[in-house]
This record gives sequence, C-alpha cells and structure tokens, in this order.
Amino acid sequence: MGDLMELDVGYDIPARVGMRLDEVATPCLILDLDALERNIVQMGRRARAMGVAHRAHGKMHKSADVARLQMRLGGAVGICCQKVSEAEAFVRAGIMDVLISNQVRDPAAIDRLARLPLRGARVGVCLDDVANVAGLAAAVARHGTQVDCLVELECGAGRCGVAGPEEALALAQAIAAAPGLRFAGLQAYHGGVQHLGTDAERRGVMAGVLDTVRDTVALLATRGLQCATVTGAGTGSFEMEGASGIYTEIQCGSYAFMDADYGRIRDAGGARLDATWDHALFVAAQVISHVLPHRAVLDAGLKAMSGESGLPMISGEPDLIATSLSDEHCVIDDPAGRLRVGDRLRLVPGHCDPTCNLHDWYVGVRAGVVECLWPVTARGKVF
Amino acid sequence: MGDLMELDVGYDIPARVGMRLDEVATPCLILDLDALERNIVQMGRRARAMGVAHRAHGKMHKSADVARLQMRLGGAVGICCQKVSEAEAFVRAGIMDVLISNQVRDPAAIDRLARLPLRGARVGVCLDDVANVAGLAAAVARHGTQVDCLVELECGAGRCGVAGPEEALALAQAIAAAPGLRFAGLQAYHGGVQHLGTDAERRGVMAGVLDTVRDTVALLATRGLQCATVTGAGTGSFEMEGASGIYTEIQCGSYAFMDADYGRIRDAGGARLDATWDHALFVAAQVISHVLPHRAVLDAGLKAMSGESGLPMISGEPDLIATSLSDEHCVIDDPAGRLRVGDRLRLVPGHCDPTCNLHDWYVGVRAGVVECLWPVTARGKVF
Repeated sequence: MGDLMELDVGYDIPARVGMRLDEVATPCLILDLDALERNIVQMGRRARAMGVAHRAHGKMHKSADVARLQMRLGGAVGICCQKVSEAEAFVRAGIMDVLISNQVRDPAAIDRLARLPLRGARVGVCLDDVANVAGLAAAVARHGTQVDCLVELECGAGRCGVAGPEEALALAQAIAAAPGLRFAGLQAYHGGVQHLGTDAERRGVMAGVLDTVRDTVALLATRGLQCATVTGAGTGSFEMEGASGIYTEIQCGSYAFMDADYGRIRDAGGARLDATWDHALFVAAQVISHVLPHRAVLDAGLKAMSGESGLPMISGEPDLIATSLSDEHCVIDDPAGRLRVGDRLRLVPGHCDPTCNLHDWYVGVRAGVVECLWPVTARGKVF
Repeated sequence: MGDLMELDVGYDIPARVGMRLDEVATPCLILDLDALERNIVQMGRRARAMGVAHRAHGKMHKSADVARLQMRLGGAVGICCQKVSEAEAFVRAGIMDVLISNQVRDPAAIDRLARLPLRGARVGVCLDDVANVAGLAAAVARHGTQVDCLVELECGAGRCGVAGPEEALALAQAIAAAPGLRFAGLQAYHGGVQHLGTDAERRGVMAGVLDTVRDTVALLATRGLQCATVTGAGTGSFEMEGASGIYTEIQCGSYAFMDADYGRIRDAGGARLDATWDHALFVAAQVISHVLPHRAVLDAGLKAMSGESGLPMISGEPDLIATSLSDEHCVIDDPAGRLRVGDRLRLVPGHCDPTCNLHDWYVGVRAGVVECLWPVTARGKVF
C-alpha cells in the first residue's frame, strides 16, 4: 500500500534535492550557499593577508560538509571542536586535523581521545592542570599514539585555563617531559569579548589579553619551550589576534553562518557586523495561525532555534518583529496584517551554535532551489 | 584491531545497562526511575479522583517508553504532541492514541496527518480557522481515514486559538459538516498561566478561562454540538481545570520530570511545587576544570540543557550555585572550594521540554545503577 510508504520528505528529512525553497518542510535549517561561500572565501583571504592559519570552529556548525568547504574554499587547516564525541564524528567523516579546544578529564573520554590517531587523524587537546598530564600520557602509551597538547590560558571568559605565564610554564614543562605528548603551544580564547557591542570595547579588553599571551610565549621561550602554535580568536575579535604578531592561528566559526547576536555588534567603522559577513543560516518557518489581524503565529519555537540569546530577526521583512518564542511557536507582530496562513519567513536565529545542534539536516539552497542536504554530522555529540 | 572498535559507550550511547551512575559518559540525561514512577502514579490517582482523563503531553519527553509507562502505571488514555512528525514517531513506536494539540496547516503535513490512521492509530488535531477544514477533509477523503477535530480556544497565551464562543461555534459547525472529520470538542490550554508564581495568581487568571470554556460548551450544546472532549491544562494549573466540571481531560506533561522553573512555583499551601512532584530528570555533569579555588567548570552547557528559562539548580548541593551557562560549559560557584576535577553533579535544568529535545538517550537509573537506556523517540521531530 502506497499510503504506508512514509520514508519521504517530512519523515526524517525536510527536503529533497531539486525542490523549490517554498516546498521544504518547516521548520528546518536553510543554508544560503552563495552567502556561505562568500563568507568562507573572505575569511580565507583575510587570514592569508594577516599571515595566520585558520582553524575553523566546528562546534558551531557540527558539519563535516561545511568543514570540507572551509578547507577547500577558505584554506582552513582543519577544525577545532569541544568534545571527544564531536571529534570522533568529524574524523569518521574524513576531517583529519582536529583540535579539541577544551579540557578532557574523564578517564573514558581520555582513552577515546588517545585512540583517535589510530584512524589517521592528527589530534590536539587543551590542558589547564598538571594533574591531566599523567592520564593522557598513559592513554597514548596504551594505544601507541601521539597527541598535540596546548596549554590553555584563561583570558577573561571566566571558564577554563591557567591563570598566567608562570602557571603556563609549569604545565608546558610537564607536557614536554611526558612521552607521547607533544607540547604544541597555547590556546588563548576570550569567549566573552566576542559579543561586546563596539570595536573599541573589544580592543580595550583584548589589549590585556594580547599582553598576557605575549608574556607567556616569551617566558616559555626563555626556558627553551617554543610555541609552534598560538591559537584562539572568534568572529568578533579575530582582527586583533590575527594582527598581533603572536597568534599563528585563528579559530573563527560564526563568520560562516552569522546570527542575530553577532549581526548587531559593530565593526571599527561603526557598521553592523552583518554588513561584512552575510547571513547564511536561516530557520525556514511558516504561519500556522493568524486569528488576530496583527498577530501571526509561526511553526518554529525553542525546538527549532535556541532562545537564550534573544529573539530571531525576520530576514528581509523590516516591518515584522518577533515578540515571543515558546516551545513550539514564534509570535510575530504583523502591524499591517499582511501575512496569511501558509506564508513562509526566513528567521535569523539569535545564536547559531545551539540552534544548529537542534537539527539533523542542513538544507542548502541556491537561487531558490535545494542543491544539497547535509547531515549535522556531530549533532548531539556532547560527551 | 580492537583499538578501532569504537561502537561503545561514549560513541553514540552514554551508558550501558548495569553500569554504575558514576560511570556514565557526561553530560547525559538521567531519569530517576523511582521518582518518575511516583510522579506518574500520583498523577493517575489525582486525575481519577477528579473524574477526568489524563492525556500525557509527549512534547515534553518525546519518549515512547515514558508514554507507555504513563499509560500503564498512570492510566493515561494516550498522549498529545505538537507536530505531525512527532505523532509519526510515536505511532511508529506503538502509541496508538495521539492528539496533535496544535494547528497543522502545511498541505504536505496535512496529508501525512491524514495517513496516520492507516497504521491503526486514533488521531486528533486542533483547528482555529474555518479555512483549515476543506484541506483536512480532502486529505482524509483521499486516504479513506477519519480524524478527530477539536476547536482550539485562545485562553490568554497569545498564540493560536479562536477568540471566543461565537467563533468556536462557526468552526465547530464547519467541522461537523465535513465528511471524514469528527467534531470532538475543545482544546483550551493557557500556556502562560502555568508558570505564575502563586496558586492565587494562577486561579485568578484561570477563572476567566473557565468562564469562556463553560460559555462555549453551552453555546455549542444549544446548537446540537456536544463537546465529547474538553481538554487542556498543565502541571501548574490542572487542579483548576480538573475540578471545573467542564474539562473531561487534562494534558499535564512536566509533572513527570519536573524542572527548576516549575520547582520554584508555589502551590495553594505556599509550598514549592517540587515538594509535590519529585525531580526525576537530571543532566549528569562532571567537573573538567577547577583552576581557581572557588570556581568549578562543568562539561555541560547550552547543548546539554536549554538556557532560556534560567540557570540549572544543583541537586542536593545547596552550597553550590550555577553562575553561567555557555555553549559547552556551566560555571559553578564553589565557595568552600570542595569540588575536585572528576566530581559528578546532577543538574536540574531550567526547562525540561527543550532540554530533553537536545539528547538522543535517557539513562534510567535506580539505586545508583543503570536499569534502562531509552531513545528520545521524537527528538528533533519539529516538522
């Protein structure tokens, strides 16, 4: 019976290649492929111009296909991500240079990390505690592998990282002395600075960070420890790290997709950041209720986009304002009462990273037609 | 090579049956099975005492296993959910009485809805617009099925639903006149009232809602339209709907798991709601960094629990306070400096529904041992 054949659009996949954009199941994640490629090419050009490598942050998109595009079109050297299970998913999908820009402390997770090079991958990890060294060294010895180790410096985000140059030195010496661990340099990323509203605010905070990183690199050098890699930076700050002469690598992620939160911050000339980086990520949504003349209700809520960074923007519709986001709905103020049930809107989510992690598929669109369907390779890989 | 055999804990699944709780991969969702069963039994008892049916809200847990427990131990008549793809997932997993307590307007989604009864399921849906009737009737005619249709009343949440009794009558008449559609009654749920802090506030708002529902039922009866079902209510308000004499069915969902947001609201006696309903849902997390004496960093962030409803509570550790939640981390104020790297905590997430939707598995635990591993059946089913 044909009626029971449900493995089609709407069951598990939101679209098929060749569909028109206005036929995809809603809500779903849409990638504007032209915008995505422009962003990737631009970041590659800017990293080259500053003489730094770009290691794209895979925690943002969790997609091996996007990572490959960043390497092919943007010259990215590889990716970073935050969890061992994420790294496993990327390596299985063929991304062979992966830095876990985070602490890995659980013994089972350390063991999985040490096994990843057996698949042919180059793998790095960050440390902020001498007590982490012995377990990592034992795991790589067990599996006959090698792992790059970076000392993470706390830069002001108030999370992980050693406090300063002296602590970094002690940890770097412990790493360098451990068999199977390669001391690779420093991880120095300030998460909080990325979203400060103006370039001047971001430069003010980053000046202190750059001084600490410079002092740390210099102190380690006096003890014979060269930092082959100094890595960090995000979409809001990368021009500072990139031009510092200290960083060798930047880790921007959000530039590729953009979101409402990043779009609002201002560059050195006072322009919105989404004038430089195009919005490439959207949540396609549809009006499912319009009982009151000025209020439309969409079929996309907190399970289609994360809500902790504010409400979505409505792309290309300056008169429409999102007024609330609940589990399953987004309510739109429609002052002219011009929307109708079935009308489709493209929402720019407040925060791209946790939004992408909600979905199983990216629907890649060019000129209004679905060109590709990419799995969110590492979706839900939080271990 | 044994080293390449990665299909084990940490790759795709966070735990195995028989493991100790302190061995599971973190972060992951933990269900305290004793607490869950107590909550389910209590709700069954209270619904029976009020003489109403309980249709458990499956949008909260998205789990066919939890739904089956609610039906077996709590006497639930079936479930409700919010999307067609969710209903498909529940029906495929054997839950055969499903109400979509939401509007379904996309033509492809309407077609999928109309096919669901072919699998043997009883299916219902809500309407707030006469324009929805023809498409639904055509779809059920195409597939030779029948769908229960409820008129959704707007109760003050500011989302979907017709404005009042007259509008409900016009829509109910249109449904009753359409072949293949069965007019089944009213959906009347006030989402916003659930989280008001005191019982008096909730009763104040619900009094008006109950009047509107009563007037609507009465008006429809004068025109020969009997409401076989009047359904709605959540964990914060169900005693009011249940005792109203108008509602025939309550739709509580969060009572089964609870969360930090519901835990804080007060019942009629002024006690916290989590004195009545036990916290059964936790995010297991682990300290991965503790560089400063009073600040511990956990391995669970916005990809392990939703952040739009506030920070998590730390279960059983009154001296520990979550101070921030970012993509991958939760920072804990540890005033006594007693936590160590590797220490495990159980977090009560701010909001259970979008938190459950982040994970692929529930790890069911009793007496500190993993008893079951349940898939989050409808995870990510947002279409």
